[in-house]
Amino acid sequence: MRTVVPFDATDPKSRLAPVLDEGERAAFSRAMLRDVVGALTALDREPTILTTAPIDTEVPVTVDERPLTAAVNRVLAETDDPVSIVMADLALVTPTALSRLYTLAIDGGADIVIAPGRGGGTNALVIAHPDFRVDYHGASYRDHCTIAADLDGSVAAVDSFRLSADIDEPIDLPEVLLHGTGDARQWLQQAGFDLEVRDGRVGVAR
Amino acid sequence: MRTVVPFDATDPKSRLAPVLDEGERAAFSRAMLRDVVGALTALDREPTILTTAPIDTEVPVTVDERPLTAAVNRVLAETDDPVSIVMADLALVTPTALSRLYTLAIDGGADIVIAPGRGGGTNALVIAHPDFRVDYHGASYRDHCTIAADLDGSVAAVDSFRLSADIDEPIDLPEVLLHGTGDARQWLQQAGFDLEVRDGRVGVAR
Repeated sequence: MRTVVPFDATDPKSRLAPVLDEGERAAFSRAMLRDVVGALTALDREPTILTTAPIDTEVPVTVDERPLTAAVNRVLAETDDPVSIVMADLALVTPTALSRLYTLAIDGGADIVIAPGRGGGTNALVIAHPDFRVDYHGASYRDHCTIAADLDGSVAAVDSFRLSADIDEPIDLPEVLLHGTGDARQWLQQAGFDLEVRDGRVGVAR
Repeated sequence: MRTVVPFDATDPKSRLAPVLDEGERAAFSRAMLRDVVGALTALDREPTILTTAPIDTEVPVTVDERPLTAAVNRVLAETDDPVSIVMADLALVTPTALSRLYTLAIDGGADIVIAPGRGGGTNALVIAHPDFRVDYHGASYRDHCTIAADLDGSVAAVDSFRLSADIDEPIDLPEVLLHGTGDARQWLQQAGFDLEVRDGRVGVAR
């Protein structure tokens, strides 16, 4: 099974601009990428990073500057074998959480296994139907279910908080400090971020 | 094991006021409560609703008008046996998701098993340490880990997206429409809510 981690090397994590400058966003996104690649490697998956621009890494890289959906669909068009797609900003990822995704795909036998993201997104996919194509725009979880149904393909979802938590906005950062186990959490701590509770709500302060 | 579902019958779901009036918030919160009680009942747990005011239900009820933390801690002080506490606003709950909580508690043997909520919350607990007391204010996940550690108690967390998703604010409603399986989802649909995708972000429209 090919395993692909799409990565935006051009303007990573732009919605974190209120709290991180451009260089920090690049560094934090690379820390999250290392956590995702590390968890996959721990499971003996050998990921390829599908990046919008060349990056310095020892992991195999494919450069495709096109938008996410087009770049992933080119990968899917290249093979009829199963492919897994894991987003690069899953900062709470652990090998255990990811192994549940793959176990559900292998043991459960669904054509498409999805790790839903918060807000209707799709944070990870295992695709075992040769005609399936992705559409990451909008409510992609619903759209991916529809695309699978149109192919008479079966769908299963893995129920994981860790895989549901992609890190896009400042409000997502407390999750990294609370539940992260890797480089992304360490990067935030070293950058001076800490939890802040105000009026009973949890945020971050620096 | 006693199983308790705390429920605010006095001013339920006040943060949904931008999209639901007072009567609707009461009805929607009761629909979520039915989903939680139904999932527990399906697992042969026999929940008691710990409510701030009398409600019309066939489920056993304890009325305690004090704030959440004080009311739950009175329950914990009444027994040395294990107690589970499941929040009433987990609209994505399924018996399968809840069974993972109880399985982790029973098979894993941790003194405290937590289902973390988004934003640092605690959405469900199985408490098997007689001296443990809750503190739901602020970053309760972190605080509950600290309280357990201070008692030399072990902690385990169940990694569930469904159990992480408590429904507090309008931004949470898409999750119910996308992933709910019970009365809460049906209530929202009958109230005229539907998914809306605008600028690539998922919300609800009515």
